Amino acid sequence: MALMETVKRRRSIRKYSPEEVPMEVVEELLEAARWAPSAGNRQPWHFYVVTEEPQRRALVEVAGGQGFIAEAPVVIIICADAERSAEKYGDRGRSLYCLQDTAAAVQNILLAAEARDLGTCWIGAFDEKACSSVLDLPANHRPVAMTPVGWKGMDPDPRARRDLEEIVTYL
Amino acid sequence: MALMETVKRRRSIRKYSPEEVPMEVVEELLEAARWAPSAGNRQPWHFYVVTEEPQRRALVEVAGGQGFIAEAPVVIIICADAERSAEKYGDRGRSLYCLQDTAAAVQNILLAAEARDLGTCWIGAFDEKACSSVLDLPANHRPVAMTPVGWKGMDPDPRARRDLEEIVTYL
Repeated sequence: MALMETVKRRRSIRKYSPEEVPMEVVEELLEAARWAPSAGNRQPWHFYVVTEEPQRRALVEVAGGQGFIAEAPVVIIICADAERSAEKYGDRGRSLYCLQDTAAAVQNILLAAEARDLGTCWIGAFDEKACSSVLDLPANHRPVAMTPVGWKGMDPDPRARRDLEEIVTYL
Repeated sequence: MALMETVKRRRSIRKYSPEEVPMEVVEELLEAARWAPSAGNRQPWHFYVVTEEPQRRALVEVAGGQGFIAEAPVVIIICADAERSAEKYGDRGRSLYCLQDTAAAVQNILLAAEARDLGTCWIGAFDEKACSSVLDLPANHRPVAMTPVGWKGMDPDPRARRDLEEIVTYL
């Protein structure tokens, strides 16, 4: 079953080869993001595609020195537009839905990349303000995640998962 | 390409046939959730599987009368364990990572279901306190989403998506 295989094969890749990623493939990942579900179909997201090396290096600094970010030829920054959700849903839209919706979009990107054997790494540990400043993002685009996109330079074992028995309760 | 097809074919299903969903299939969806990525591999989640009709009807009330929830034979409640993330990441774990991690798990569930031609609907519009009370959830399990899981009783057209040109900026 292809979907389950892709879900289980995905890893956080922290080493990349420098080979180019075709822009059609990047566009496919963004197309996957675009088809994520969102509360009330608000689609409260914006995606920035960074390819220039100086900007990729700046993102390394923004993310506390995670050097592998700049190894990949492409970095996608995923932004939440909280006000777009809040217009319809108030604070629940601002503090929950827009974060969930963008996270679903990120997960689609990671899976679409894995299906192409491309590596990604969901990065949340970065300075949002510094990121906005470096990329000159508008105020309504809050960067909530970023991921490098590149050909894998490593093939890590999966990280251990908690057993189903520990995380599922049948009522 | 199977992954992209599954991503694009998924819909929010709001009408279900009453036929049973085998528990092995439900377990497969939970297995997909289990393999979602999470910040620092904290896996700050718990999943409740509701099958009894009185409880499913109670969830309808919790969710403002969305009757289709009780049509499906199974409802999965996705909970975030904020303190599990906060232990390592403080407030960013509590207010961002645990919500993103659980959202990635939800998206995996929806895609794994679609791959089996099962219907789901990501529901965020419900009273969290009422949900916790009805299901007697522990304080550290915050219900952040629920989805019915059942055989589709409708085949809706996709809802319109914003164009890539509107949501993507190449820097």
